[in-house]
Amino acid sequence: MIRRPPRWRAEGVRRIGDIKEEKAEVPTDTNLRPRARDLGIEIGQLPTGKHNAITDIHGVRVGHVTLRKGSGRLEIGRGPVRTGVTAIIPVPGNIYKKKPAATVHIINGYGKSLGFPQVAELGNLETPIVLTNTLSVWTAADAVVDYVSKQNPTRASFNPVVGECNDGRLNDILGRHVKKRHVLRAIKNAESGPVPDGNIGAGMGMSGFGFKAGIGTASRVVGRHAIGVLVLMNTGGAGNLVIDGVHIGHALDAKADEDGDGSIMIVLATDAPFYQRRLTRLAKRAAFGLARTGANASHGSGDFVIAFSTTALTTKQADEYSIPEQEISTYFWAVIEATEEAILNSILRCDTVTGRDGNTRNGIPIEPLKRLLEHGKIS
Amino acid sequence: MIRRPPRWRAEGVRRIGDIKEEKAEVPTDTNLRPRARDLGIEIGQLPTGKHNAITDIHGVRVGHVTLRKGSGRLEIGRGPVRTGVTAIIPVPGNIYKKKPAATVHIINGYGKSLGFPQVAELGNLETPIVLTNTLSVWTAADAVVDYVSKQNPTRASFNPVVGECNDGRLNDILGRHVKKRHVLRAIKNAESGPVPDGNIGAGMGMSGFGFKAGIGTASRVVGRHAIGVLVLMNTGGAGNLVIDGVHIGHALDAKADEDGDGSIMIVLATDAPFYQRRLTRLAKRAAFGLARTGANASHGSGDFVIAFSTTALTTKQADEYSIPEQEISTYFWAVIEATEEAILNSILRCDTVTGRDGNTRNGIPIEPLKRLLEHGKIS
Amino acid sequence: MIRRPPRWRAEGVRRIGDIKEEKAEVPTDTNLRPRARDLGIEIGQLPTGKHNAITDIHGVRVGHVTLRKGSGRLEIGRGPVRTGVTAIIPVPGNIYKKKPAATVHIINGYGKSLGFPQVAELGNLETPIVLTNTLSVWTAADAVVDYVSKQNPTRASFNPVVGECNDGRLNDILGRHVKKRHVLRAIKNAESGPVPDGNIGAGMGMSGFGFKAGIGTASRVVGRHAIGVLVLMNTGGAGNLVIDGVHIGHALDAKADEDGDGSIMIVLATDAPFYQRRLTRLAKRAAFGLARTGANASHGSGDFVIAFSTTALTTKQADEYSIPEQEISTYFWAVIEATEEAILNSILRCDTVTGRDGNTRNGIPIEPLKRLLEHGKIS
Amino acid sequence: MIRRPPRWRAEGVRRIGDIKEEKAEVPTDTNLRPRARDLGIEIGQLPTGKHNAITDIHGVRVGHVTLRKGSGRLEIGRGPVRTGVTAIIPVPGNIYKKKPAATVHIINGYGKSLGFPQVAELGNLETPIVLTNTLSVWTAADAVVDYVSKQNPTRASFNPVVGECNDGRLNDILGRHVKKRHVLRAIKNAESGPVPDGNIGAGMGMSGFGFKAGIGTASRVVGRHAIGVLVLMNTGGAGNLVIDGVHIGHALDAKADEDGDGSIMIVLATDAPFYQRRLTRLAKRAAFGLARTGANASHGSGDFVIAFSTTALTTKQADEYSIPEQEISTYFWAVIEATEEAILNSILRCDTVTGRDGNTRNGIPIEPLKRLLEHGKIS
Repeated sequence: MIRRPPRWRAEGVRRIGDIKEEKAEVPTDTNLRPRARDLGIEIGQLPTGKHNAITDIHGVRVGHVTLRKGSGRLEIGRGPVRTGVTAIIPVPGNIYKKKPAATVHIINGYGKSLGFPQVAELGNLETPIVLTNTLSVWTAADAVVDYVSKQNPTRASFNPVVGECNDGRLNDILGRHVKKRHVLRAIKNAESGPVPDGNIGAGMGMSGFGFKAGIGTASRVVGRHAIGVLVLMNTGGAGNLVIDGVHIGHALDAKADEDGDGSIMIVLATDAPFYQRRLTRLAKRAAFGLARTGANASHGSGDFVIAFSTTALTTKQADEYSIPEQEISTYFWAVIEATEEAILNSILRCDTVTGRDGNTRNGIPIEPLKRLLEHGKIS
Repeated sequence: MIRRPPRWRAEGVRRIGDIKEEKAEVPTDTNLRPRARDLGIEIGQLPTGKHNAITDIHGVRVGHVTLRKGSGRLEIGRGPVRTGVTAIIPVPGNIYKKKPAATVHIINGYGKSLGFPQVAELGNLETPIVLTNTLSVWTAADAVVDYVSKQNPTRASFNPVVGECNDGRLNDILGRHVKKRHVLRAIKNAESGPVPDGNIGAGMGMSGFGFKAGIGTASRVVGRHAIGVLVLMNTGGAGNLVIDGVHIGHALDAKADEDGDGSIMIVLATDAPFYQRRLTRLAKRAAFGLARTGANASHGSGDFVIAFSTTALTTKQADEYSIPEQEISTYFWAVIEATEEAILNSILRCDTVTGRDGNTRNGIPIEPLKRLLEHGKIS
Repeated sequence: MIRRPPRWRAEGVRRIGDIKEEKAEVPTDTNLRPRARDLGIEIGQLPTGKHNAITDIHGVRVGHVTLRKGSGRLEIGRGPVRTGVTAIIPVPGNIYKKKPAATVHIINGYGKSLGFPQVAELGNLETPIVLTNTLSVWTAADAVVDYVSKQNPTRASFNPVVGECNDGRLNDILGRHVKKRHVLRAIKNAESGPVPDGNIGAGMGMSGFGFKAGIGTASRVVGRHAIGVLVLMNTGGAGNLVIDGVHIGHALDAKADEDGDGSIMIVLATDAPFYQRRLTRLAKRAAFGLARTGANASHGSGDFVIAFSTTALTTKQADEYSIPEQEISTYFWAVIEATEEAILNSILRCDTVTGRDGNTRNGIPIEPLKRLLEHGKIS
Repeated sequence: MIRRPPRWRAEGVRRIGDIKEEKAEVPTDTNLRPRARDLGIEIGQLPTGKHNAITDIHGVRVGHVTLRKGSGRLEIGRGPVRTGVTAIIPVPGNIYKKKPAATVHIINGYGKSLGFPQVAELGNLETPIVLTNTLSVWTAADAVVDYVSKQNPTRASFNPVVGECNDGRLNDILGRHVKKRHVLRAIKNAESGPVPDGNIGAGMGMSGFGFKAGIGTASRVVGRHAIGVLVLMNTGGAGNLVIDGVHIGHALDAKADEDGDGSIMIVLATDAPFYQRRLTRLAKRAAFGLARTGANASHGSGDFVIAFSTTALTTKQADEYSIPEQEISTYFWAVIEATEEAILNSILRCDTVTGRDGNTRNGIPIEPLKRLLEHGKIS
């Protein structure tokens, strides 16, 4: 809920340095843009975790590799490149041997995410989750197999889980610039603590509601447990953005030619001891958070949810029923609030980016937005 | 979107007389409460149909029987009775022979709705849809069989589709006061034109967001076609109501002891020639409309969607692909907007009701609400 | 696998007396027909439990009420009556408070079974499972609510699970002769030990593969645990029956006018500590057992599976992962074998029955069948 | 049904030459092994199409590339190589623009098949279907994107559908020897007419029921339409094989150390004008055909079905309801029979293959099998 006046705390905004990767990768400058809470936007009722990030779930780590190279006219295979990779490590150590409980939920299935059938059947993860652009999911999966087979040399069956959004408006997507080394680097880069967000990793070339968008994250605490959400945001029609109930519409020059197709990948983590059935109940509520931001899961938007528990391993029993089923409603709120806020962060944190053919996606303008939220008008 | 100042048009509010049914049924007085649009609340962008009701879909009819009897202490089997039946007739004539295309979608499955597996398998309806209280669904189904077998005397297999919410807070639900005759009467009462709403039919004993709630409806036009929604509303935690983005919270004395469990039945009708796969895509967007009103589909809330087409019969081919798949995104908006508005109407139109054991559910107070929406505060 | 010569042990065949219920109920004479094993037919590799019945799962009980009255021409509402009720009690005591883990799986959804959405959502049972004829499921559900609400007087939401097949060929199904008292009696009658089968309970009026069919059961032991199956059999086209791989075809005068439509209800019980995800994996294998008997799950055949665990309660954690996931394959075999054998038993145990309008369904002729299985021909 | 004496027609067995692909590819010798019908094994009742192959569906084409290189001890990355690629082209011309109706069905989801979510959502195919080994699915998908993006240069979102089984017992699967050029070659090789089968394409390194297995196909005619099935077979425990009801067991030296894990990919084609809902009903019956061969869809067996129609395009309406829903039961039989027979063919047509580390999988011995089927014993 927006509590006015917003407490604008630009000085509190930190940003962890981006990853430099060869020639193709250019570090984003220190990001001074606010997150939602810096603008006084506090979604919902539940408290956030320490970093208000998916990494508030103990053991979860996030790593990025950002690819940004060239400008001007598109030459397929040469660029311009505006893309990247984001890796989420669900548990420390050898994931394949721990197999944390997991589920998948598909809000709208127009997408190329892979690895979902096995997660649905076995109810677990055995690899990192990787996010990238639409046409790089298969290379990413190949790289994940390299990673996990090296850890488990006697096994010959692995189920990479890779999600994607289409960054083809800014990026030379047909050039498929993401290589296996980038994916492996993103995994290696994974860290706990504050999560670098905005125009970073897989979020480099994405858009949302007619603005630049990218990676966003948030978390909520429920008793002794927490829910963390990380989104790769690329959906929402121009003019449809809603910030904590306020219809932003075209007031802030959301680019008008948008149809809202795109996609969003939503990754949910929890340290509650929830197995697949309950994780599925949680995952379905991510759509509620998405809906509150003004999205309609449009025809061409591949909206996928992956949820996992860090404490319910499918190799060793956790006590799921120590939490009575009816207490799950509070976790539902945690999912809804954290998803909504993660999506807002994924937009707020993105500066303007110009990509292929001079296509530009503007970062949402912060000062006008503040005026709009405070006074109901821009000027 | 709320367009201020709200155009309050009490004189424009009509209400079709309720059904009187024996001693148990008392007509509701002419309902003078506003619908959302009477308060200037215009959800979304798309135009409404003529009646802003599910009956804007040609051929769809709605009938109610309302049961209201007694007051005071609960005596199971004697009352007080605050319940009823609402019937939706999808197409004129013998439904069993036309078999309009249909689907079901379950947002949260904690509920007793019946008839869903066969709709999912065959993609059609063969009976009216009936809504009632949780413990009367089986009686209602029995009555539907009476109705449809009379029309089709040589057949011996019928699939009633009956949805429910739990009105046990106000109603002697264990008394199971709904009888087959009430269900048959609701079917017989079905009419086109404006839909009587609020504390009527199955909505008599329901609540939502801590206020009295009941039946609500709305519609949207998409090109030559339309989407109509009717809800039986009984979900939403006290303090969570959002009206077109404005968090109403506890400002209006939503009863504080609510946990949001309850349920909602959402019925979608369209005259677009959509078969099951597309209807399912539509049905899933009803959750987006629900989410925008502040619900979280809580653990105990059975949130079910039934969608049908009046023009795509499964006995005679309609030209579904005359509408390209990508045009469906606008229909998604129609579903979202009409669902959100139908839910608001289901609350706005309900006066205060006192039921068993003196339990009272207040109608949302209109004047304070108007002040809240206009000025951001009540006084 | 058929091991010849079959060990025909008519003396070993016992049959528990049927239930006498008012005028409408006539006890079946002691059933002297063989089960599959009495004919030397031993399906698969795994050992059976003590009774080769669903009641081999500790705590599971089965009760029947059989309704058989009148003969001659059909007069709807008067008879002839050939129907009944079968109740399966999953765990002793108050089921509503124990909530054993459960799942549902729909092989072909042309059917009216009810209670499935909530089982799918919450992963448990809170009532007995009841089987009856297609048009009596709603009455049966109502009766189950009477039963369980009496045990739990402070609750007002119950989820009866009722399955059905259509016995309209022999029974005055439109007369809906099953009353609530019959359902309550079937529940009360429930016993452990050998399960009365064949033309009994809900099986009274059913058919399969052109022969008389009804209730059948079987079980398999897997290490310290077991799988039990009970079927209400009413599917399979005439001429399609396969007994342990042998195509029986029309050799035994299966009635030729059959289209295979009908239905089958398959109830699986296990004492393995399996929650919903694993139970669903088991339930899907019931289709494999069904397939091996020559069924095709024809268009009009509502083929539903309900599976539950007696030891994995959703109110108290059981150690599911004490059994590694990969060991589940043996349980798959147990489900397949027990389902196949239960279906064979459901046919073998049924004598000829003549019902409404003189319609007759012949019991499969045992002596010719024995010759066919032993010598590959009847004479 | 086995009609004895089997009509052994070795002279009738033709085999189209295999593909030679660089050094890594060695043509299989002309295959003289029988198909099921050459042994007098005629599964079911329905007539076959002209070639008894998936290509009996007009417009469907199949192409293979087989990779066979080296022998002896496994050196990851060097070999021995026993793998390949099989491509199924659903319709002539630009698939992306025709978008034939399609569905997916997952019998057991332990597998890495990709492209399924979008097929489920949109109900169509937009690329060839490719089959290969487990760890090459991602490379194969990348190659499919090359193929389809070349045909559709202005598009940047494609949904490859790739299925897999694990050939790691014979093949250096971790070496990932399938390259994009092999996949493109398999697509280019696709032809109508008789389908090369057995140890070919993706089938090169597979096993089934303890014998060598690979590609198999069969078809059935239903009125003016047909059903074709192609399987990539790699499942079934040693000793479990059933041929038209006859338990083969270990009589023919099925290798005893098998656990039945593996996988099977089942591709169904039809020229009936069926859209997704009906195709899903068909796809579910593939499990019935699989069950009849003795499989149990074991824990580790990824058993996936893809079904498509060549005449129900999702870009132009076909008249699905010209075929009444109830007539679908015959199509169910067609699916069951063709799947069962395709699986048998996938085994019968495979000679013995020795792969990595000297691992050998024997071709099922034909002469003993004939004696077993005719006389019930081998000698």
